Amino acid sequence: MAIRFELLARDGQARLGRLTTPHGVVETPTFMPVGTQATVKGLLPEQLRAAGVQMVLANTYHLALRPGAELIAQLGGLHRFMGWDGPILTDSGGYQVFSLAAIRRIGDYGVEFRSHVDGSLLTLTPERAVEIQELLGSDIAMCLDECPPFDAGETVLREAVRRTCHWAERCRQAHRRSDQALFAIVQGGLDLALRQQCARTLIDMDFPGYALGGFSVGEPPASMYPVVAATAGMLPENKPRYLMGVGRPQDILEAVAAGVDMFDCVLPTRNGRNAQAFVRGGVLRLRNAVHRTDPRPLEDDCPCPACQHYSRAYLHHLFHAEEMLGPILLSLHNITFYQRWMAEIRQAIAAGRFAEYRAARLAQYGSDN
Amino acid sequence: MAIRFELLARDGQARLGRLTTPHGVVETPTFMPVGTQATVKGLLPEQLRAAGVQMVLANTYHLALRPGAELIAQLGGLHRFMGWDGPILTDSGGYQVFSLAAIRRIGDYGVEFRSHVDGSLLTLTPERAVEIQELLGSDIAMCLDECPPFDAGETVLREAVRRTCHWAERCRQAHRRSDQALFAIVQGGLDLALRQQCARTLIDMDFPGYALGGFSVGEPPASMYPVVAATAGMLPENKPRYLMGVGRPQDILEAVAAGVDMFDCVLPTRNGRNAQAFVRGGVLRLRNAVHRTDPRPLEDDCPCPACQHYSRAYLHHLFHAEEMLGPILLSLHNITFYQRWMAEIRQAIAAGRFAEYRAARLAQYGSDN
Repeated sequence: MAIRFELLARDGQARLGRLTTPHGVVETPTFMPVGTQATVKGLLPEQLRAAGVQMVLANTYHLALRPGAELIAQLGGLHRFMGWDGPILTDSGGYQVFSLAAIRRIGDYGVEFRSHVDGSLLTLTPERAVEIQELLGSDIAMCLDECPPFDAGETVLREAVRRTCHWAERCRQAHRRSDQALFAIVQGGLDLALRQQCARTLIDMDFPGYALGGFSVGEPPASMYPVVAATAGMLPENKPRYLMGVGRPQDILEAVAAGVDMFDCVLPTRNGRNAQAFVRGGVLRLRNAVHRTDPRPLEDDCPCPACQHYSRAYLHHLFHAEEMLGPILLSLHNITFYQRWMAEIRQAIAAGRFAEYRAARLAQYGSDN
Repeated sequence: MAIRFELLARDGQARLGRLTTPHGVVETPTFMPVGTQATVKGLLPEQLRAAGVQMVLANTYHLALRPGAELIAQLGGLHRFMGWDGPILTDSGGYQVFSLAAIRRIGDYGVEFRSHVDGSLLTLTPERAVEIQELLGSDIAMCLDECPPFDAGETVLREAVRRTCHWAERCRQAHRRSDQALFAIVQGGLDLALRQQCARTLIDMDFPGYALGGFSVGEPPASMYPVVAATAGMLPENKPRYLMGVGRPQDILEAVAAGVDMFDCVLPTRNGRNAQAFVRGGVLRLRNAVHRTDPRPLEDDCPCPACQHYSRAYLHHLFHAEEMLGPILLSLHNITFYQRWMAEIRQAIAAGRFAEYRAARLAQYGSDN
């Protein structure tokens, strides 16, 4: 087995676990920063480590287009290429093809699309998605899935589920690397019967882990919660559950409460680049004039470099002066914030007081951030 | 005395020294990275330290305009504001007024100009230049000088020298902080008689250090060398000599040979942001296709994060993918390169083999970079 997942404690539906991968151990629930193009934007791997990051995500679609999976393999694989020796999860490229690629044709054979980099016509099949991820050498690879918009009609959703299951079986057949785990993705939109059908089909194929896909595609966050809870409940107890592309700190609390173990999202880095800092009380917008003369750090007790060495006034100055250090420091802070959020969640589950912790944190954080 | 300068060894005209400031000791010859807006672009202070940086420069003009010297003083001074507890030198703002400000009027009273940030009309006088730098709290402040273009006629040059000397005396009179040294700037363009006259006048005022100004204003580099050599020779032996805004690695070798102790320049960071890496053999342009598949580091023996963890192929990828980490890693490498260049220069002077070292390094580096 490429990975081992141990369930250490349970508190309601929330789970504390340990995921052992070829590149190290990950404590769950875990949050993976996104390193789309083989770099978590603006940060060095040593800074990610110092922020408490245990695992990162990289995007197969982007890396396959540039610089190419074959080149990365030739240079020793993705870990070596990006200088990160911890665990890496790669997505399958499906989500990006459906959201970024210029035009496309889709059939059971795969997806044809134009590269957003150079406009060239490319085809992604289940077999090629697996091959690319095997070339990259990630610890966890994902099956190619079809990811329809949240407001797709039932016919489209049903077809996406059928194709996702068909592709999952082909991915499973194509997958060779024994030092890489292949996870399947449950689709079905907000339709619980479809989710159930998809989950059952994929569970029969016996993957080592399951993802909840098809969120973060434009739906109102609140509509996601009951579907995540119901779908998580359909998945095997002894395997990790990964909610793709989600989300905000409050979304993570809700999904952990529903039994999800793994998360990724661009929010901490993207919002950091846009001068937004996550703090316990919500979100600070550092460009705002209220911060211009404020000598306080973002958070008193945060160990990140931004909070240890700088005032809000300095961060405000960096963003107004358009200095790179602003995005760097807020990305570092936000990733540290997310990692501390996860560490506290794990402690609360271990202590059997997750429900209480969740309520207190939600009240403090506010729902409008 | 705010600073102490000890001459430890001499080798020809080249000097090995130790500059003690209120915020620490600097070994000379030294190179100061430029932190224009209270940040060396893209880098954290701890990364500068790790690269061997002992002192940084900040730009008075930029900081006075944004966020304002009074605000920085209110927040505890520039060291605290920018999180750098080592020595800082601030320029006077003169060079930037003459090169960046939109319109201006100049008289013996000072310079009137429009802010490049918001277009407001501002006046910089010798007294205000000193006041701003005292508010910033740098270890070394510079007198306001008039900095004409390199192709200015004799009348303009002569007038600039006269005014620079007049302003130096007013700066000296205005200067109050005992924990800050005020250096004067020798002007005179490429006219040695004017340089001599300016140097003599300023030496009579007994400043604790002297700068060579008026270079890096468009002149061909080779025309600078004899003037730097002659001017350095006019300055007191027992005080530090600072060549402002210079320069390329080969320029530094030439100026050290002429007896210069201190340097600053934007090249390592600016060129780093533009995908150019300094190496012993010259300059590598990382965007070029030749680097696309190259598994080697920039330099085998360089201790910087870029060389320790990454291939040229990865750096090439980062620049083509427009990732922030490219500018960050090359800035780190280039600053490390400059600091190693200075450390070797100091070792060569200490060993009494600077001429030999200089010839070997120049031959290896090439003159066309």
